[in-house]
Amino acid sequence: MYVVLVYVHVFSDQIETFTIATKENAEKSSKLESGVVRFDVVQQADDPARFVLIEVYRSKEAAAQHKETSHYKNWREIAEPIMAEPRTRAFYTNIFPEDI
Amino acid sequence: MYVVLVYVHVFSDQIETFTIATKENAEKSSKLESGVVRFDVVQQADDPARFVLIEVYRSKEAAAQHKETSHYKNWREIAEPIMAEPRTRAFYTNIFPEDI
Repeated sequence: MYVVLVYVHVFSDQIETFTIATKENAEKSSKLESGVVRFDVVQQADDPARFVLIEVYRSKEAAAQHKETSHYKNWREIAEPIMAEPRTRAFYTNIFPEDI
Repeated sequence: MYVVLVYVHVFSDQIETFTIATKENAEKSSKLESGVVRFDVVQQADDPARFVLIEVYRSKEAAAQHKETSHYKNWREIAEPIMAEPRTRAFYTNIFPEDI
Protein backbone atom coordinates (compact mmCIF):
# COMPACT_ATOMS: atom_id res chain seq x y z
CA MET A 1 0.00 0.00 0.00
CA TYR A 2 1.04 3.57 -0.64
CA VAL A 3 -0.34 6.20 1.70
CA VAL A 4 -0.28 9.94 1.01
CA LEU A 5 -1.13 12.51 3.67
CA VAL A 6 -1.97 15.90 2.16
CA TYR A 7 -2.12 18.93 4.45
CA VAL A 8 -4.31 21.78 3.27
CA HIS A 9 -4.89 25.20 4.82
CA VAL A 10 -7.68 27.22 3.18
CA PHE A 11 -8.86 30.79 3.63
CA SER A 12 -11.34 30.87 6.51
CA ASP A 13 -14.14 32.22 4.34
CA GLN A 14 -13.67 29.37 1.86
CA ILE A 15 -14.13 26.41 4.18
CA GLU A 16 -17.52 25.46 2.77
CA THR A 17 -16.38 25.69 -0.84
CA PHE A 18 -13.35 23.55 -0.05
CA THR A 19 -15.43 21.01 1.88
CA ILE A 20 -17.95 20.54 -0.94
CA ALA A 21 -15.27 20.19 -3.63
CA THR A 22 -13.15 17.86 -1.54
CA LYS A 23 -16.05 15.58 -0.59
CA GLU A 24 -16.89 15.22 -4.25
CA ASN A 25 -13.30 14.37 -5.14
CA ALA A 26 -13.03 11.90 -2.26
CA GLU A 27 -16.29 10.19 -3.16
CA LYS A 28 -15.42 9.83 -6.84
CA SER A 29 -11.87 8.72 -6.06
CA SER A 30 -13.01 5.98 -3.71
CA LYS A 31 -15.87 4.81 -5.95
CA LEU A 32 -14.35 5.08 -9.42
CA GLU A 33 -10.65 4.32 -8.97
CA SER A 34 -9.80 0.65 -8.45
CA GLY A 35 -6.36 1.72 -7.22
CA VAL A 36 -7.85 3.70 -4.34
CA VAL A 37 -8.35 1.70 -1.15
CA ARG A 38 -9.62 4.64 0.86
CA PHE A 39 -9.80 8.40 0.53
CA ASP A 40 -10.61 10.03 3.87
CA VAL A 41 -10.91 13.75 4.53
CA VAL A 42 -10.63 15.16 8.06
CA GLN A 43 -10.91 18.68 9.44
CA GLN A 44 -8.74 19.95 12.29
CA ALA A 45 -10.71 20.28 15.55
CA ASP A 46 -9.09 23.50 16.76
CA ASP A 47 -8.77 25.14 13.32
CA PRO A 48 -11.54 24.32 10.81
CA ALA A 49 -9.55 25.94 8.00
CA ARG A 50 -7.05 23.06 8.13
CA PHE A 51 -7.66 19.65 6.59
CA VAL A 52 -5.83 16.40 6.00
CA LEU A 53 -6.55 14.11 3.05
CA ILE A 54 -5.65 10.55 3.98
CA GLU A 55 -5.23 8.84 0.62
CA VAL A 56 -4.59 5.08 0.60
CA TYR A 57 -3.58 3.60 -2.77
CA ARG A 58 -2.83 0.02 -3.79
CA SER A 59 0.45 1.20 -5.35
CA LYS A 60 2.54 4.25 -6.16
CA GLU A 61 1.31 3.93 -9.74
CA ALA A 62 -2.30 4.20 -8.57
CA ALA A 63 -1.42 7.47 -6.84
CA ALA A 64 0.02 8.79 -10.11
CA GLN A 65 -3.09 7.65 -12.02
CA HIS A 66 -5.31 9.54 -9.57
CA LYS A 67 -3.76 12.78 -10.76
CA GLU A 68 -4.88 12.04 -14.32
CA THR A 69 -8.58 11.78 -13.45
CA SER A 70 -11.09 14.50 -14.28
CA HIS A 71 -12.37 14.62 -10.68
CA TYR A 72 -8.86 15.32 -9.38
CA LYS A 73 -8.32 18.01 -12.00
CA ASN A 74 -11.70 19.60 -11.17
CA TRP A 75 -10.86 19.54 -7.46
CA ARG A 76 -7.47 21.14 -8.05
CA GLU A 77 -9.04 23.89 -10.14
CA ILE A 78 -11.44 24.82 -7.33
CA ALA A 79 -9.23 24.09 -4.32
CA GLU A 80 -5.85 25.52 -5.27
CA PRO A 81 -6.95 29.17 -5.54
CA ILE A 82 -8.60 29.09 -2.10
CA MET A 83 -5.58 27.70 -0.24
CA ALA A 84 -4.00 30.12 2.23
CA GLU A 85 -0.61 28.51 1.56
CA PRO A 86 0.64 25.74 -0.73
CA ARG A 87 -0.45 22.28 0.42
CA THR A 88 2.19 19.85 1.63
CA ARG A 89 2.41 16.08 1.27
CA ALA A 90 4.15 13.17 2.95
CA PHE A 91 4.37 9.57 1.71
CA TYR A 92 4.06 6.38 3.74
CA THR A 93 3.80 2.60 3.59
CA ASN A 94 1.37 0.70 5.80
CA ILE A 95 2.64 -1.18 8.85
CA PHE A 96 -0.77 -2.03 10.32
CA PRO A 97 -3.03 -3.36 9.11
CA GLU A 98 -0.85 -5.21 6.63
CA ASP A 99 -3.63 -5.41 4.04
CA ILE A 100 -5.46 -2.13 5.00
CA MET B 1 -15.98 10.47 14.67
CA TYR B 2 -12.90 11.71 16.40
CA VAL B 3 -9.60 11.26 14.57
CA VAL B 4 -6.19 11.57 16.17
CA LEU B 5 -2.98 11.71 14.14
CA VAL B 6 0.07 10.90 16.24
CA TYR B 7 3.52 11.69 14.81
CA VAL B 8 6.37 9.60 16.17
CA HIS B 9 10.10 9.82 15.45
CA VAL B 10 12.15 6.96 16.89
CA PHE B 11 15.89 6.35 17.14
CA SER B 12 17.03 4.70 13.89
CA ASP B 13 18.33 1.60 15.68
CA GLN B 14 14.96 1.12 17.39
CA ILE B 15 12.70 0.94 14.35
CA GLU B 16 12.07 -2.81 14.68
CA THR B 17 11.28 -2.59 18.40
CA PHE B 18 8.90 0.27 17.77
CA THR B 19 7.23 -1.53 14.86
CA ILE B 20 6.59 -4.71 16.85
CA ALA B 21 5.21 -2.86 19.88
CA THR B 22 3.06 -0.55 17.77
CA LYS B 23 1.59 -3.35 15.66
CA GLU B 24 0.56 -5.13 18.85
CA ASN B 25 -1.05 -1.99 20.26
CA ALA B 26 -2.84 -1.29 16.98
CA GLU B 27 -4.12 -4.85 16.67
CA LYS B 28 -5.42 -4.99 20.24
CA SER B 29 -6.93 -1.50 20.00
CA SER B 30 -8.85 -2.31 16.84
CA LYS B 31 -9.97 -5.76 18.02
CA LEU B 32 -10.72 -5.16 21.69
CA GLU B 33 -12.01 -1.58 21.88
CA SER B 34 -15.55 -1.05 20.63
CA GLY B 35 -14.86 2.70 20.51
CA VAL B 36 -12.05 2.24 17.97
CA VAL B 37 -13.19 2.35 14.35
CA ARG B 38 -9.71 1.96 12.92
CA PHE B 39 -6.14 2.13 14.15
CA ASP B 40 -3.70 2.37 11.26
CA VAL B 41 0.07 2.68 11.50
CA VAL B 42 2.14 4.00 8.59
CA GLN B 43 5.88 4.47 8.11
CA GLN B 44 7.34 7.44 6.24
CA ALA B 45 8.70 6.41 2.82
CA ASP B 46 11.79 8.63 2.86
CA ASP B 47 12.58 8.26 6.57
CA PRO B 48 11.70 4.86 8.13
CA ALA B 49 12.30 6.23 11.63
CA ARG B 50 9.14 8.36 11.31
CA PHE B 51 5.63 6.99 11.77
CA VAL B 52 2.07 8.23 11.90
CA LEU B 53 -0.65 6.52 13.95
CA ILE B 54 -4.03 7.22 12.36
CA GLU B 55 -6.48 6.58 15.19
CA VAL B 56 -10.21 6.77 14.40
CA TYR B 57 -12.54 6.72 17.40
CA ARG B 58 -16.34 6.79 17.63
CA SER B 59 -16.10 9.68 20.12
CA LYS B 60 -13.71 11.83 22.12
CA GLU B 61 -14.59 9.70 25.15
CA ALA B 62 -13.47 6.55 23.32
CA ALA B 63 -10.09 8.21 22.72
CA ALA B 64 -9.77 8.90 26.44
CA GLN B 65 -10.75 5.31 27.27
CA HIS B 66 -8.03 4.01 24.96
CA LYS B 67 -5.42 5.55 27.23
CA GLU B 68 -6.73 3.48 30.15
CA THR B 69 -6.16 0.13 28.45
CA SER B 70 -3.31 -2.18 29.37
CA HIS B 71 -2.19 -2.50 25.74
CA TYR B 72 -1.84 1.29 25.46
CA LYS B 73 0.11 1.44 28.72
CA ASN B 74 2.38 -1.42 27.61
CA TRP B 75 2.98 0.32 24.29
CA ARG B 76 3.82 3.61 25.98
CA GLU B 77 6.27 1.88 28.30
CA ILE B 78 8.18 0.39 25.36
CA ALA B 79 7.77 3.19 22.83
CA GLU B 80 8.35 6.38 24.82
CA PRO B 81 11.99 5.66 25.76
CA ILE B 82 12.96 4.94 22.14
CA MET B 83 11.51 8.16 20.69
CA ALA B 84 14.11 10.58 19.34
CA GLU B 85 11.84 13.49 20.31
CA PRO B 86 8.45 13.80 22.03
CA ARG B 87 5.58 12.64 19.83
CA THR B 88 3.06 15.21 18.65
CA ARG B 89 -0.70 14.91 18.09
CA ALA B 90 -3.41 16.66 16.14
CA PHE B 91 -7.16 16.17 16.44
CA TYR B 92 -9.75 16.03 13.67
CA THR B 93 -13.35 15.31 12.78
CA ASN B 94 -14.29 13.34 9.68
CA ILE B 95 -15.62 15.10 6.61
CA PHE B 96 -15.54 12.10 4.27
CA PRO B 97 -16.71 9.47 4.56
CA GLU B 98 -19.39 10.73 6.89
CA ASP B 99 -19.67 7.38 8.67
CA ILE B 100 -15.99 6.28 8.18
